[in-house]
Amino acid sequence: YKFEGNNTSGSHKLNSAIAQAYYAKKQGLKGVTTETGAGQWGTALSMACSYFDLDCQVYMVKCSYEQKPFRREVMRTYGAKVTPSPSMETNVGRRINAEFPGTTGSLGCAISEAVEAATSQQGYRYVLGSVLSQVLLHQTIIGLETMTAMDKYGIVPDVIIGCAGGGSNLGGLISPFMGRKLRGEQDYRFIAVEPASCPSLTRGKYVYDFCDTGHVCPLAKMYTLGSEFIPSANHAGGLRYHGMSSILSQLYDDKLIEARSVEQTAVFKAAQDFARVEGILPAPESSHAIKVAIDEAMKCKETGEEKTILFGLTGTGYFDMYAYKAYNDGTMGDYIPSDEDLKRGFDAIPRFPGNME
Amino acid sequence: YKFEGNNTSGSHKLNSAIAQAYYAKKQGLKGVTTETGAGQWGTALSMACSYFDLDCQVYMVKCSYEQKPFRREVMRTYGAKVTPSPSMETNVGRRINAEFPGTTGSLGCAISEAVEAATSQQGYRYVLGSVLSQVLLHQTIIGLETMTAMDKYGIVPDVIIGCAGGGSNLGGLISPFMGRKLRGEQDYRFIAVEPASCPSLTRGKYVYDFCDTGHVCPLAKMYTLGSEFIPSANHAGGLRYHGMSSILSQLYDDKLIEARSVEQTAVFKAAQDFARVEGILPAPESSHAIKVAIDEAMKCKETGEEKTILFGLTGTGYFDMYAYKAYNDGTMGDYIPSDEDLKRGFDAIPRFPGNME
Repeated sequence: YKFEGNNTSGSHKLNSAIAQAYYAKKQGLKGVTTETGAGQWGTALSMACSYFDLDCQVYMVKCSYEQKPFRREVMRTYGAKVTPSPSMETNVGRRINAEFPGTTGSLGCAISEAVEAATSQQGYRYVLGSVLSQVLLHQTIIGLETMTAMDKYGIVPDVIIGCAGGGSNLGGLISPFMGRKLRGEQDYRFIAVEPASCPSLTRGKYVYDFCDTGHVCPLAKMYTLGSEFIPSANHAGGLRYHGMSSILSQLYDDKLIEARSVEQTAVFKAAQDFARVEGILPAPESSHAIKVAIDEAMKCKETGEEKTILFGLTGTGYFDMYAYKAYNDGTMGDYIPSDEDLKRGFDAIPRFPGNME
Repeated sequence: YKFEGNNTSGSHKLNSAIAQAYYAKKQGLKGVTTETGAGQWGTALSMACSYFDLDCQVYMVKCSYEQKPFRREVMRTYGAKVTPSPSMETNVGRRINAEFPGTTGSLGCAISEAVEAATSQQGYRYVLGSVLSQVLLHQTIIGLETMTAMDKYGIVPDVIIGCAGGGSNLGGLISPFMGRKLRGEQDYRFIAVEPASCPSLTRGKYVYDFCDTGHVCPLAKMYTLGSEFIPSANHAGGLRYHGMSSILSQLYDDKLIEARSVEQTAVFKAAQDFARVEGILPAPESSHAIKVAIDEAMKCKETGEEKTILFGLTGTGYFDMYAYKAYNDGTMGDYIPSDEDLKRGFDAIPRFPGNME
């Protein structure tokens, strides 16, 4: 596996945060704004901004702000200003608070607030940590390092596995290998693993859709469950996005990558098995990849085939111990949305010629 | 700095846990028992036992069991049985619960329970993670690795700094360098850093004392504040031991190492400065060393001297975010025990000829 967990942001996200902060500094900006849900991206951007002495303003979904005080404190330690969203500091925040008193917020709302904060302050820009092509580009460092290491030891992976939420870590891991595959130099199987509770690739539509719930961003062609699809509160916060990066969506549609969805309790069983053998306590997100890596290894054991299975281990689960507690206590459940649940999300996809007619 | 934080136990403690679990397995034991306060040692031992398929029973001080549910869940994830102490599972636990109803426990009590659990079950032994000489021996890997790295780059440290609670990480870091110093091959300054709230070296007595509050362990000659000294609830759980390893105590008494005590808020200021520059979010314990390393560097800046300052960075603060929150909120205080406070502890040191007469 390629381990990306040895930094405080607890994930590969620093790869993109540092690049984005660097260019913001070079551009002469005073600071950046962003949104964060679980807090990984906000943490990474806070760290990157502290390196470059940039101001960092993070709008954190209010329910996460309250439920994940540790992530919030990490960001504050790096000097970021963390505001629970919806706040009373922006027009859109005040409007949402008036319309839905007591709301605990959403990523879509936090994005809208962060965009407003950037556009209303001189010298600020809004930045995003997943889905978009520049983020996948920054993340190719994961795949490049992996390829260098494997080449050094003369190992060729047969299967390459990664978890997929917005798609940035998976895209980064597989890109260099995909290059080799597309150039006909080598063949590999690629598997994207997503939660059964948020099955963008395996059950989504490949259409133009809004990237955010607030509909302030441009449309993107992607596999999507609809921007109003609300995934169940599973424990893999980083994989609860309604869509999938356009690049990965195209590769999936071209059948160059496979996708598989897995259920939460099976994922935590895999996480526990992995922790007990390898020592590393994996993030719930990363454990989706572990689960399918174990499944593939078990298939080999049955058939007697020998295969090299590579997977991306995006981060540690140190800030996810409530989830581990639920698993250890046996109170964790699985949720698979019904076709009816998905229909509600699909209904919100914009209708125009050639798109969800 | 020598970073020891890239493992899930969040500290160097795995160095000794693996060695102790290995020998337990070799000895044919079924399992081991131990106590834990903040949970670092319990985590390390749980991990080590999962590698060797040994049963691991951890008695965790009840107030920590309740206040640090995340450390508890980490241990459970590695397969350990974690019992809040005092429990109703041992004679000593039942006795203490009857005598002090509603007590939140102490390390001394947890040790007594763990020892009883070991002696009352076939194939079990009690193991300890700090203070004792074998633990310092296991920890010399820290110093050996550091020395190898510094020799490789041709760097000679002038000052070597480490935090000191029971003394295992500091002893491990400095031992190989102390060897060179004692053999006259090289000279270094060594500084042990302890909390002002638990100043075993800087304000303790060098006498024979009980290692545990429950008085089930043999006496040891060491710098001690008395086994009944109760340190204030500072945020560096790993540095709240009333005594200091016998080896380090001897070196300090021989003036081969220096000691310095530092206050909590200054420690967190250093931790924050370090995090913002280096990215690593340090443990409160480790940050004691960071504080003095910064002080020494600032002195050099004043005098214009160039010095190589080496310090041990024992672990990350991912499970200490309540402490960071207190610092970020400005609600953290400093506590320095009065001479009167210390006298109460000294009064409990056993009196016999040549010892606290």
